Amino acid sequence: MYVDELKKIIDADRVTINPTMLEQHSKDESYHTPCLPDAVVFPKTTEEVSRIVAWANERHVPIIPFGVASGMEGQIIPQQGGISLDFQLMNRVLEVKPQDFLVRVQPGVTRMQLNKELKKYGLFFSVDPGADATIGGMAATNASGTTSVRYGIMRDQVRDMEVVLADGRIIHTGSMAAKSSSGYHLNGIFVGSEGTLGVFTELTLKLYGIPEASVTARASFPTVTDAVAAACAVMAAAIPVARMELVDGRSIQQVNRYKGTGYPELSTLFFEFHGNEAGLAHDLAFAQEIVGEHGCSDFISETDSLRQAALWEARHHLAYAFLHGYPGKKAMSTDVCLPLSELAGAIGHARELIEQSGMVGGIVGHIGDGNFHSLLMVQPDSSADIEQAEAINAQIVSYALSRGGTCTGEHGVGLGKAKYQRTEHGAALDVMYAMKQMLDPNNILNPGKIFIF
Amino acid sequence: MYVDELKKIIDADRVTINPTMLEQHSKDESYHTPCLPDAVVFPKTTEEVSRIVAWANERHVPIIPFGVASGMEGQIIPQQGGISLDFQLMNRVLEVKPQDFLVRVQPGVTRMQLNKELKKYGLFFSVDPGADATIGGMAATNASGTTSVRYGIMRDQVRDMEVVLADGRIIHTGSMAAKSSSGYHLNGIFVGSEGTLGVFTELTLKLYGIPEASVTARASFPTVTDAVAAACAVMAAAIPVARMELVDGRSIQQVNRYKGTGYPELSTLFFEFHGNEAGLAHDLAFAQEIVGEHGCSDFISETDSLRQAALWEARHHLAYAFLHGYPGKKAMSTDVCLPLSELAGAIGHARELIEQSGMVGGIVGHIGDGNFHSLLMVQPDSSADIEQAEAINAQIVSYALSRGGTCTGEHGVGLGKAKYQRTEHGAALDVMYAMKQMLDPNNILNPGKIFIF
Repeated sequence: MYVDELKKIIDADRVTINPTMLEQHSKDESYHTPCLPDAVVFPKTTEEVSRIVAWANERHVPIIPFGVASGMEGQIIPQQGGISLDFQLMNRVLEVKPQDFLVRVQPGVTRMQLNKELKKYGLFFSVDPGADATIGGMAATNASGTTSVRYGIMRDQVRDMEVVLADGRIIHTGSMAAKSSSGYHLNGIFVGSEGTLGVFTELTLKLYGIPEASVTARASFPTVTDAVAAACAVMAAAIPVARMELVDGRSIQQVNRYKGTGYPELSTLFFEFHGNEAGLAHDLAFAQEIVGEHGCSDFISETDSLRQAALWEARHHLAYAFLHGYPGKKAMSTDVCLPLSELAGAIGHARELIEQSGMVGGIVGHIGDGNFHSLLMVQPDSSADIEQAEAINAQIVSYALSRGGTCTGEHGVGLGKAKYQRTEHGAALDVMYAMKQMLDPNNILNPGKIFIF
Repeated sequence: MYVDELKKIIDADRVTINPTMLEQHSKDESYHTPCLPDAVVFPKTTEEVSRIVAWANERHVPIIPFGVASGMEGQIIPQQGGISLDFQLMNRVLEVKPQDFLVRVQPGVTRMQLNKELKKYGLFFSVDPGADATIGGMAATNASGTTSVRYGIMRDQVRDMEVVLADGRIIHTGSMAAKSSSGYHLNGIFVGSEGTLGVFTELTLKLYGIPEASVTARASFPTVTDAVAAACAVMAAAIPVARMELVDGRSIQQVNRYKGTGYPELSTLFFEFHGNEAGLAHDLAFAQEIVGEHGCSDFISETDSLRQAALWEARHHLAYAFLHGYPGKKAMSTDVCLPLSELAGAIGHARELIEQSGMVGGIVGHIGDGNFHSLLMVQPDSSADIEQAEAINAQIVSYALSRGGTCTGEHGVGLGKAKYQRTEHGAALDVMYAMKQMLDPNNILNPGKIFIF
């Protein structure tokens, strides 16, 4: 076993083969089958990461970067063994540059930790995937979430990264400039590469000023098609929504059961608007007019921050409501993203598939982006459950790909979406794989993810 | 000569060696020395492009994609001869998808042609580099300009591209989905690759709704430092400016000479705001308050569209004013971009270098992005002029790179910025070059650009 060799490269007490620790590093939030790493290593510096990776490259040992395991597609599962590289000791906010709207962080910083730190500067980091993920993990999967419709996805926020390549070389992928036409855009390629091209050791991120004012609103609709049409009309009117989430009737029902609430069990849109007060009043009135034209009769808005949270409660409790309601089950989440004109059809199709299957499942969508999730409740050790959910997922993906969409809007490829890569990317997949082979000829960087041939 | 071979691949009348035509394809807007291509070819379809490129790859003949030659760094100059691939016959707007805020175009479409077409849908394409460039050319250099502070740069607008690779393979780099975490982000790498990685044959672009209302404003300041500080304060206040341009006193003086106008010959900020009327009034009042705190005493605003154009006149006429004032000279434009906190220092430093040199030069900046240009008037056939301007450029670049900036914010690398790539990118340049070698092993795609070793 190579653990003794590792202990010569990094302090022995930061290399562990403790079974509980290995088990903790064997799985994420997904339904994918856990696998144990050979060892877990906790680096403290970029130089240590570089030494470990260079060593692993010579010994052909897999390296799997690990944050807090909040991923949805098994990206951190060490399917081929190797070293789980846990970044919990590299969790410092290194520098806030308020005048530049920038922050430099280590990859193990979580987004809530970061936002707590930024609050005193009147700034915030915009990407909100729900979970309190690490910044390194969010960059690896190109995470996004509820605010992306206004502020963009993870890739849009990364100005620069320090990356350790497979051979131990350390590079920077960008600069602190807001824009650049210099060289090739390495930021873009490394963000979303899921640990397969290099290991991130530092990130410089774009920040935003906390908005002067915000308003939230909720609106329910007779049918899911009405709700989607209303959301598309809000986008077409170019109302700058900061958040716009769809939650279907089945999901609201689940929240009512879990929380004992009495929300109308109808397809519902949750809104948040950011801006100045005068502009917000106008945006809100315009949005209300539009949803009214699509059958909404209960548009409710709030400016008080506590009441705002209450208004969004049903959206926030959604995942827990399902997990709580079906103990022992996990949610397999589909993640397609389509052009807005195809969204109503896609959601209708997904709803129909779920009904036909008899599975328990709700639909929630970051609808301004055209991204929605079907949460399918599965027993992780039931191959029948998994197969049925996989079959539904395959049909949802196939529908999306045939209409110009993508198999994953924000969860990444990992293990679950590798089988759709050829259909989605065609010959471009060969270009991607050639990049992988060029940067990682020994296939040590998170092997088995993204590509299966 | 290989022209006879080419005429077997594409209609003979779309292959030319006419000397006037070769001369037209030998140069762009820059001060770089022209070079003739061996032939100019006008493809009509993707399949033709694929056939031509595959043939060129076998014969080791350079391929230089050509739009309207409005580039600023010699990207389309065929330094090593070869074929200038002129896209003027591939200039159709293929499909407008208003509900999806998308348009599919051929690379030879120009941005004004596109915006004319889009107007009837109430939509616009946001990137405005000044020149009426082609969309293919703008994607190749990752162009940006006055509106990027609000709507983003070219890379942000490209949802998908059809690209012909060096061996003739045709790939798609993205999809129509607003976001994706599927595979590697090829859009990002190909945008800004300046014809060195592949030839673009189709582009799907993001569009925006024409804003409900807009306001323009102009404000002049006692010193350039005050103007920059005011601009940074507007950004810090998160006022969503749609455009915010700096024009220095020397440039305003040149406009006054050219147009016979009487603008105050002071550093001036030009603003444009987009939004709804209520929000705009608030934004405008807030901006006026901020610029007032930085010594501005003549804030003027306009809502009427004709008067808006008049208010921005000095900004629009800037380049012409210099070119007209110094007949026979060309403008060498520097193009650095820095974090906002470093901008005042960088502009002060550039102004000082220009004064010391005795050269004629103005400074204009897309200041919300941290990007500014020093326009240095040079005699293109005077090596003394060129050398002096190059020396100033080198110092401006060096200042920017040592402060986290980039050598080119929007003009691209081409011939002029290749020498700064190693300093800017360090070991990352080796990764970029490895990508180039992998995708273009025979070095036929715009050879000699970006990389000089």
